[in-house]
Amino acid sequence: MDLKQELKKRRDFFNIQLEKFLNNGTPENLYNAVRHLPLAGGKRLRPCTAMISCEAVNGDIKNVVSLSIALELIHNFTLVHDDIMDKSKMRRNIASTHIKFSEPTAIMAGDLLFTKAFESMHNITSDCAIFKNVEFGLIDCVREICEGQQMDLDFEKRKIITENEYIEMIRKKTAVFFQFAAEAGAILGGGKKEEINALNEYGLNLGIGFQIWDDYLDISSNLKTLGKDIGNDIRNGKKTLIAVHSLNNAKGKDKEIIDKIFGKPDASYEEIKVIYNLFDKLGSIEYVKNKAINHCEKAKNALKVLKETDAKNILMELAKYTISREK
Amino acid sequence: MDLKQELKKRRDFFNIQLEKFLNNGTPENLYNAVRHLPLAGGKRLRPCTAMISCEAVNGDIKNVVSLSIALELIHNFTLVHDDIMDKSKMRRNIASTHIKFSEPTAIMAGDLLFTKAFESMHNITSDCAIFKNVEFGLIDCVREICEGQQMDLDFEKRKIITENEYIEMIRKKTAVFFQFAAEAGAILGGGKKEEINALNEYGLNLGIGFQIWDDYLDISSNLKTLGKDIGNDIRNGKKTLIAVHSLNNAKGKDKEIIDKIFGKPDASYEEIKVIYNLFDKLGSIEYVKNKAINHCEKAKNALKVLKETDAKNILMELAKYTISREK
Repeated sequence: MDLKQELKKRRDFFNIQLEKFLNNGTPENLYNAVRHLPLAGGKRLRPCTAMISCEAVNGDIKNVVSLSIALELIHNFTLVHDDIMDKSKMRRNIASTHIKFSEPTAIMAGDLLFTKAFESMHNITSDCAIFKNVEFGLIDCVREICEGQQMDLDFEKRKIITENEYIEMIRKKTAVFFQFAAEAGAILGGGKKEEINALNEYGLNLGIGFQIWDDYLDISSNLKTLGKDIGNDIRNGKKTLIAVHSLNNAKGKDKEIIDKIFGKPDASYEEIKVIYNLFDKLGSIEYVKNKAINHCEKAKNALKVLKETDAKNILMELAKYTISREK
Repeated sequence: MDLKQELKKRRDFFNIQLEKFLNNGTPENLYNAVRHLPLAGGKRLRPCTAMISCEAVNGDIKNVVSLSIALELIHNFTLVHDDIMDKSKMRRNIASTHIKFSEPTAIMAGDLLFTKAFESMHNITSDCAIFKNVEFGLIDCVREICEGQQMDLDFEKRKIITENEYIEMIRKKTAVFFQFAAEAGAILGGGKKEEINALNEYGLNLGIGFQIWDDYLDISSNLKTLGKDIGNDIRNGKKTLIAVHSLNNAKGKDKEIIDKIFGKPDASYEEIKVIYNLFDKLGSIEYVKNKAINHCEKAKNALKVLKETDAKNILMELAKYTISREK
């Protein structure tokens, strides 16, 4: 089984539905801004998670098209607004929405993507109780994403972050959405209670593992190459899990060095290298790598209650891929 | 019957419920930003419209508390984002949310107000079919508000706007929300089909009349005083209904003058006065005043099918007030 091929098959199917859904609307410039990012590609990991979860409980993926559209639109709405907040100029190799269409139109395009997501939710099922249950789950999810995003902003200004706080931040900012995608996919696929719970557990741990592995990749690839462009996260005092671990575990002279350089806006290339080597020496890089692996193991273990199907295999492979990818 | 007193009674009741609803949440700074504008007062016209509509069909206003909270939160979410777009520094006599809490936090606070509105919608009724009907109405409403807001932005850059385009813009930007508030209040109050339709018609025309009267007030009060601070709308080429009427009806020399001065960034005080007097001479001010009056007459006429109640009287008075207020 070729994971990339399986994901592509579903992504291609999904992209056709998404294009159809975003096909019209006036004023045209607003809807062009609405379509700009969602139709510029992307991995579609959240829709794929929902679709494969649905299949894993023997559901028909047609039952999760509207949910998947909603998930992807919510994801894109947060990206459009994040890019304004971060003043990011590029996304998916094209100009970000506020650069191409102006900031006011991008704020509104984000709001409208949010609205269109709920429009799509109204088509997820004719069963009213299930509709309310799933829709409320999505609202909860968006609330947590906002809260997680704010925690992330706040962490930049704080000196000490505990590991638990960090995990709570990425749980909210990233993992709840995968958790919801997997759970809702199973609900709309007609899964049994224990299958739904299993996929909830899978999504949560996959999401946490995914985000931690991202942290690990950033640092470990820098440590290998130590290219001239490294170090901005260190200069900005960005609280990745690796930094959090080192900040909380360094003692004596190591602690003095970290306190002096971490978050120093004009830290030199040599100073940055010192920090990277300290992260390594303190075991923070290995610690974080193992933590990502543990979460993906938990994700795989959660799937044990599911029947053996192609979809289950894909979910297993997805968890493996999460902690083996190099970008 | 004292309209102000009746509105205040409902506003006070509503404000207690709103404060309760926004009482908690972390991170604290995000929720402080969320509470900043909604708890800084405001006329609460949309909640009041929903509550009085509910009463007008003999419903209990307790049935529209959650709906009213959702309406006010959506309204505030659009204001928070509008203030960022317009770079407005003040709102309701306090610093606007992005000035007090930073732009990133204000974007997020707006998104969270939107989310919390849908959270509140989940409590509007235990009847699932009614829930879906009303919630979908709200989503449609927000979509139209976004579209109307973009039309308004686009109008600034266009030379010619027809009256129909202008009315369509304010219908979307302002009136649909009053229309929805009145209709949904009647639905949740258990109104009959014809009562619900009547209140829908009332809300739509009240909303259009309200917005047009705002246009009229801006110009007519300036025309009376002709103070030194007038004219920025003229210099910016702002397409109010009065300007639209004059631009479309001026001929010959009048047209030349308007074409020359309207939208001229450095127009002098004398030039501005010329334009105001032209608006008057061309009958645009009287035309727009009458148009507001007509819409409020339509609003009142729509109420004929309702039984005689105190609530009906309040709605009648509200329509009268809309076209008699001086600010």
